[in-house]
Amino acid sequence: MVPPELEEGLPLERIKDFSLEELLGMAVKAEIGARKFYESLAERIDIQELKNKIEWLAGEEKKHEELLRKIYANMFPGKEIVFPKEHIGPELQPVARQLHGVEDIIDLIRWAMKAEEIAAKFYAELENMVDTEEKKRLMRYLSDMEWGHYYNLKAEYELLLDWAMYSQMMNVGP
Amino acid sequence: MVPPELEEGLPLERIKDFSLEELLGMAVKAEIGARKFYESLAERIDIQELKNKIEWLAGEEKKHEELLRKIYANMFPGKEIVFPKEHIGPELQPVARQLHGVEDIIDLIRWAMKAEEIAAKFYAELENMVDTEEKKRLMRYLSDMEWGHYYNLKAEYELLLDWAMYSQMMNVGP
Repeated sequence: MVPPELEEGLPLERIKDFSLEELLGMAVKAEIGARKFYESLAERIDIQELKNKIEWLAGEEKKHEELLRKIYANMFPGKEIVFPKEHIGPELQPVARQLHGVEDIIDLIRWAMKAEEIAAKFYAELENMVDTEEKKRLMRYLSDMEWGHYYNLKAEYELLLDWAMYSQMMNVGP
Repeated sequence: MVPPELEEGLPLERIKDFSLEELLGMAVKAEIGARKFYESLAERIDIQELKNKIEWLAGEEKKHEELLRKIYANMFPGKEIVFPKEHIGPELQPVARQLHGVEDIIDLIRWAMKAEEIAAKFYAELENMVDTEEKKRLMRYLSDMEWGHYYNLKAEYELLLDWAMYSQMMNVGP
């Protein structure tokens, strides 16, 4: 079941229906959404090791947002960023509710993995749409970074599924 | 050309010639080698953003070493860890020389990527060799984490190849 922090958005194939300007706007918006999601999630997690990791992800998304704003300013000088109403892939929203137990955390991390995976594929598609080697490189950079996040989350996810082991390993719990 | 910080080691297919005990010993040794490599590399890098990332990797490998020692102690209680002379995949050594320019850094990062990739595949193979779901989970965790490192390094590597752009983006250089 899709949690309230997530809108499923359009499938990746719809990428061809948008201009590069709109897609970069979506990317900026997605990075902001991801940052706010991770920040609010970290506030609701007591497991220190996991909290640190989620905060680290929030910081990474902040840097990506700044990088994308630079790219946008470079490609469309003097223009305000266009944020299309529609978006490709899951869009993350801040976690505004109380989380109950590890199952809620596991569920949100699974969705964050999905969002990171689609973001990685989205940037790989943008690589084919931008025109210079420099811009292609930046898109590869962003794509690789999101794959890095995906695997980092996947690792934690795997262990969280066995909560007894996780709490023993991370020296948390009763 | 293989740099002095790296021994190429045996191909992954040789994994079946060793016992699980030996393979876990190799894994501990590889994590120690990787940590020392990243620590010494970070000391020789002036680019703050990259230095932070490399230091972060060193910290991660330290945690993996501790986790592997726990797994070993659990599987072979009271036994000293066996460190086989041979090892699967590239073994990283501390960087003891002065690095000259960004080309040296690029070269070492490419080798670190290779080592992370083989480590990820190595743990995936170990997953098939250990007997309980708990141990399998831990091997998946380690494999996923190393893939996370691989993509993180790959992202930096891509940008470092265009040094002019990297230094502008990271606000370094003249």
